[in-house]
Amino acid sequence: MVNYREPLDRTFAALVDPTRRAILARLEREDSASISALAAPFAIKLPAVMKHLDVLDDAGLITRSKAGRTVTVRLRPEPIREAMEWMRRYERFWSKSLDRLAAYAERKEAETRKKRR
Amino acid sequence: MVNYREPLDRTFAALVDPTRRAILARLEREDSASISALAAPFAIKLPAVMKHLDVLDDAGLITRSKAGRTVTVRLRPEPIREAMEWMRRYERFWSKSLDRLAAYAERKEAETRKKRR
Repeated sequence: MVNYREPLDRTFAALVDPTRRAILARLEREDSASISALAAPFAIKLPAVMKHLDVLDDAGLITRSKAGRTVTVRLRPEPIREAMEWMRRYERFWSKSLDRLAAYAERKEAETRKKRR
Repeated sequence: MVNYREPLDRTFAALVDPTRRAILARLEREDSASISALAAPFAIKLPAVMKHLDVLDDAGLITRSKAGRTVTVRLRPEPIREAMEWMRRYERFWSKSLDRLAAYAERKEAETRKKRR
């Protein structure tokens, strides 16, 4: 067992696996789904899906509620929001290159206008 | 060894560890740093730091260049950009609650104005 020290550790660890990302992406589109419906598209057995759901649950990325024999899974997006907050500091790198691109486009446009006169 | 199938797997796996996140955060602030400078704040030995740098390098999150005996480490933010792109689909969840908050604030303001009349 890996020992996670911070909530972000758990969030990013939950997002490492493409099956878990696919489950989250589906819950984004469908609001809620039963475990068997979530498991259906994957070529893995139900216990493996259950393990993935445990990881997502531990990271606070889903909630599970039981009614009779059906377990309904829902997205809990807050940890993703926190992960995005952490990542936002890097945004300046690509917005900077977008700024440069915009400046270049404006310069080109101005040059074209000059030539036309 | 874990086998990562997709670039996003590697990016999120690199971000799981708080030491690696701290290294990336420092490279965001300082543009570039030598390995010994990067290792200085941590209570772990240099080989452990080197291992973390290998993981970051494999994920394409840093570049290393050597001049004489000094290795300079730089941030490569593109994979973080791609990870944020993946996360962006969840933004509507919190922007929705921000919309609700804005609507509530507007309603309160309108009520206050009415009372003043």
